[in-house]
Amino acid sequence: MANQTSYISLTTDFGTRDGNVGVMKGVIYRIAPAAKIADISHHISPQNIFEAALVLSDRAYYFPENSIHVVVVDPGVGTARRPIAAQIGPQRFVGPDNGVFTPMLMRAEEENWPIKIIHTDNPDYWLPEISNVFHGRDIFSPVGAHLAAGAQLEELGSPIDDPVRIPLPSPRRTERGWVGEVIHIDHFGNLITNIRREDLAEERDVNVTLCNVTIEGLARTFGERDVGSLVALYGSNGHLIISEVNGDGAKRLKSKIGDEVEITSR
Amino acid sequence: MANQTSYISLTTDFGTRDGNVGVMKGVIYRIAPAAKIADISHHISPQNIFEAALVLSDRAYYFPENSIHVVVVDPGVGTARRPIAAQIGPQRFVGPDNGVFTPMLMRAEEENWPIKIIHTDNPDYWLPEISNVFHGRDIFSPVGAHLAAGAQLEELGSPIDDPVRIPLPSPRRTERGWVGEVIHIDHFGNLITNIRREDLAEERDVNVTLCNVTIEGLARTFGERDVGSLVALYGSNGHLIISEVNGDGAKRLKSKIGDEVEITSR
Amino acid sequence: MANQTSYISLTTDFGTRDGNVGVMKGVIYRIAPAAKIADISHHISPQNIFEAALVLSDRAYYFPENSIHVVVVDPGVGTARRPIAAQIGPQRFVGPDNGVFTPMLMRAEEENWPIKIIHTDNPDYWLPEISNVFHGRDIFSPVGAHLAAGAQLEELGSPIDDPVRIPLPSPRRTERGWVGEVIHIDHFGNLITNIRREDLAEERDVNVTLCNVTIEGLARTFGERDVGSLVALYGSNGHLIISEVNGDGAKRLKSKIGDEVEITSR
Repeated sequence: MANQTSYISLTTDFGTRDGNVGVMKGVIYRIAPAAKIADISHHISPQNIFEAALVLSDRAYYFPENSIHVVVVDPGVGTARRPIAAQIGPQRFVGPDNGVFTPMLMRAEEENWPIKIIHTDNPDYWLPEISNVFHGRDIFSPVGAHLAAGAQLEELGSPIDDPVRIPLPSPRRTERGWVGEVIHIDHFGNLITNIRREDLAEERDVNVTLCNVTIEGLARTFGERDVGSLVALYGSNGHLIISEVNGDGAKRLKSKIGDEVEITSR
Repeated sequence: MANQTSYISLTTDFGTRDGNVGVMKGVIYRIAPAAKIADISHHISPQNIFEAALVLSDRAYYFPENSIHVVVVDPGVGTARRPIAAQIGPQRFVGPDNGVFTPMLMRAEEENWPIKIIHTDNPDYWLPEISNVFHGRDIFSPVGAHLAAGAQLEELGSPIDDPVRIPLPSPRRTERGWVGEVIHIDHFGNLITNIRREDLAEERDVNVTLCNVTIEGLARTFGERDVGSLVALYGSNGHLIISEVNGDGAKRLKSKIGDEVEITSR
Repeated sequence: MANQTSYISLTTDFGTRDGNVGVMKGVIYRIAPAAKIADISHHISPQNIFEAALVLSDRAYYFPENSIHVVVVDPGVGTARRPIAAQIGPQRFVGPDNGVFTPMLMRAEEENWPIKIIHTDNPDYWLPEISNVFHGRDIFSPVGAHLAAGAQLEELGSPIDDPVRIPLPSPRRTERGWVGEVIHIDHFGNLITNIRREDLAEERDVNVTLCNVTIEGLARTFGERDVGSLVALYGSNGHLIISEVNGDGAKRLKSKIGDEVEITSR
């Protein structure tokens, strides 16, 4: 069993400069020699649980079934917050019980996927020595690696049914359309909103207003419009995004996370 | 076949913060469970096709034979630009048909390597659902993964012989020597020029002028000169580079991409 | 032998933008097709041998036994400085002989681990063509890969017993306690000092003074104190660190590497 191929993804706020991601990989390979490890992101804003949830929630489900997604955005490390592992539909997750798995749990509930959550309090699956400040190395990586090496979720600790949840901002219906907000700004300066394709299903012909600028109509893709123009379109995970073609929309609009986005029928 | 080891490299302008490289790896592992994936760069300047071509062109040929190099610098995503896959000498490439493979094609023509290019329009090798904005995830990763899992290039679509090419700046001969330009500035602030070792083969004893500063003679390596001095030497891919020993040559000279570099005999 | 799984870690100052880490992986896979490669850090400050030593020294020992740690922070590339490979206790290392392995050697001497160091001057284990500026690609990666593929240390060259060492700043005992210094500032802005848990073993009830600010007592972990407060505690490798809870301690204190830290009994 220890030699089967399993896939482990890593999502942290550690950055890549100090070697703390590397040491997690060393710990994983020691326990699960055949694991294949993929980085999702190590540049989550420090302590930003919501951002980690957002970045991982859809992407995890593109991995092979039963991959193990280890998340370490963990401002409560060393306190009473529980370490957990979970089966949420076809994927497995390991991390602190601080709400980072909220969108995965919501999706599983919508889609009637099985959910199983374990408080991973069995120290047999931890490193022998535990620091108070780096459970990514001492608890989450070994627990993820033991799963990869064939351990069952139930061996890791006791089942729980009250995982911490964080509030996720939802768009709201207005008389004229929808009001949402900017929830992420990506590497290109694209503004990702919490308005989703399914929200607007019935009205395709809309205007999008953000930072006092109105974009008329939705584009299908960037290259449809001239370089330098502002476009609104659906991003790769179905969220409405606002972009400058081949430019930086966030800089152009001086927009930031939390800014209100209004959708109105044309 | 699906279990043979194949090597896939990834080159994108996605950055590493948003998880979009991670999701490509998930997609690849699902189709090619035994693939080994190596990142070349995810910090290509946004939409900079020339930079991606430059960074990948020599480096790809250090990989095991028949490795698959997936490139996603793709300002035309979702438009009529073709997705392609190619055998170019001993390496394989997958990406948008926007000229990013131009230097590899030129080298293959010089060295009489076989070239085969396919318009990868067979959707059997894509993800079942295709977005208009992330073909890296939906087309290029699955196509690369299918190659890694044993698919033949020909299965992926129809052969083409008119791939898009981009102009590559060439140095020119002058009465006094050569004039070239800065084509890349690396992490250390080294200025990489388009003048190559073979251009200067006949004249080793030269002066190099850039930004009104003249460096006398070529060094063999950095450590030959005092810390803080400017040196001109051949970089690891045979390009003439200008550096400050243990410093940042670009900052020192206030140089930028496109700056003229003149070579004159001493 | 060439197909056995071996683990190779990479630590460089190359950054991740120019593809130079990727090309090292290509070279490694060509020689050791089954190697598994983990990045430790590619954001060591340029030419900062001490920082590379610090980042790697503890972390290497979390990897599977006999992993190979390739380090390329190499201001002397192409000069007379020797390339070396070493067995230092249960781990193997490859890199320039510039002192980067000093802390590993000191630990091995303290713990009576076996040490074997080879000047890797046998060109059979290098790439056929050697540049003067990129031994990471041309010497260190192939040497590391040959070890991964089953070569013995002794085949790589001649034994040496005089590796270069760099001075490591030690804290000193004072009448009132200890005086040390800041040796690293991590991604979160935590200030890592050269004072270790074992130095303070006998006195737990201490004040920590840095940049004219005194922190009373040591915390066990970050989350014990209010967000925004300054705390002193032991980091994950046993060093005393100073942090701002959920903030950036270095920015808050305007502290930099080399700043004096004083420990006094309460």
